Amino acid sequence: MSGSQRPGGRTARVRAAVLEATQDELVERGFHGLAMDQVAARAGVGKTTVYRRWGGPAGLVADLMDSLATESAPHADTGTIEGDLLENARNVLGAITDARLGATFQAVIAAATCDEEASRALHGFYTRRIEEWARVVDLAVERGELPAGTDGGEVIRAVSAPLYYRLVVTREEVTGDVAARVAGQVLAAARAGAFVRART
Amino acid sequence: MSGSQRPGGRTARVRAAVLEATQDELVERGFHGLAMDQVAARAGVGKTTVYRRWGGPAGLVADLMDSLATESAPHADTGTIEGDLLENARNVLGAITDARLGATFQAVIAAATCDEEASRALHGFYTRRIEEWARVVDLAVERGELPAGTDGGEVIRAVSAPLYYRLVVTREEVTGDVAARVAGQVLAAARAGAFVRART
Repeated sequence: MSGSQRPGGRTARVRAAVLEATQDELVERGFHGLAMDQVAARAGVGKTTVYRRWGGPAGLVADLMDSLATESAPHADTGTIEGDLLENARNVLGAITDARLGATFQAVIAAATCDEEASRALHGFYTRRIEEWARVVDLAVERGELPAGTDGGEVIRAVSAPLYYRLVVTREEVTGDVAARVAGQVLAAARAGAFVRART
Repeated sequence: MSGSQRPGGRTARVRAAVLEATQDELVERGFHGLAMDQVAARAGVGKTTVYRRWGGPAGLVADLMDSLATESAPHADTGTIEGDLLENARNVLGAITDARLGATFQAVIAAATCDEEASRALHGFYTRRIEEWARVVDLAVERGELPAGTDGGEVIRAVSAPLYYRLVVTREEVTGDVAARVAGQVLAAARAGAFVRART
């Protein structure tokens, strides 16, 4: 097996360097300032390699989001749905208030308003994250904490949404208090059966 | 009283033309493509006037958001909190799925991720909108439909957030079904007392 084929080999190292440089550039310049040559220089990788492998700025962003999805925290398992939803809210809060990660999400959210490839990358990231965390609701249903048929994806969206809404739409501060309140509000609705899937 | 001082006079007509041109340009080119000269030409107004009165692209966007806030629908008063929250969800849905208005919001949301003045304009718009619609919760408390101390602003944010979250973050389709479900989920939480302000 050659070095370039091993996980952690040359190909993986090039990807890691290019994605780190992509994230640096996104944080500093935003999506509109993302330039392939600059990313290549910053990563210490030949331009030809970067163009051949990622095609363009949107390709870099798509691969970065894919990598962030893989690194994203697996769902909590605190033993109660109350604890797990609070963990989801804290996880979102931690991501959006982290200087580097928060700026990355905001840059990709901005890019997605006018770029189809960035939009798909964003959609893919959140689809994976929502599916991963929706399992805490399935576990709660199995434990008898929530009504059968509760839609886990909808519950997780409802916890995450008010935090992102304050971040990018109303431009309000997102604090630990807000995160805890939102988790409690969604839990109350879930217990009342408001997230049970409609029978069709 | 001179013509230029009357509401509907020359000053008001110039503002209306410039803000319409600003919105056209935002929809077609996004915030990064918004150019003062182009807005002036499109509005049929002298460049000097546009520069003197609005300063720059962010000033145009701020005034546009101010004007949209003024035109924004007053809160519903259907007689029940169920009906009013559903109306809020439908109102948000109508705005974000309207080709022109939806593209305007998305352009300003994108701009706000990297421009402080655009961020303040967005914040001002949603603060006014949330305050206006929060009154439906106060009315419901007065009618005895919701517990005393229910935070109207938080209820309205909770209804609007999952719709904007799908629009700009997860990039999922926002339908009338989603809007109705979200209104029902928030109503269940509000009835359970989950939006009652913490005593401090």
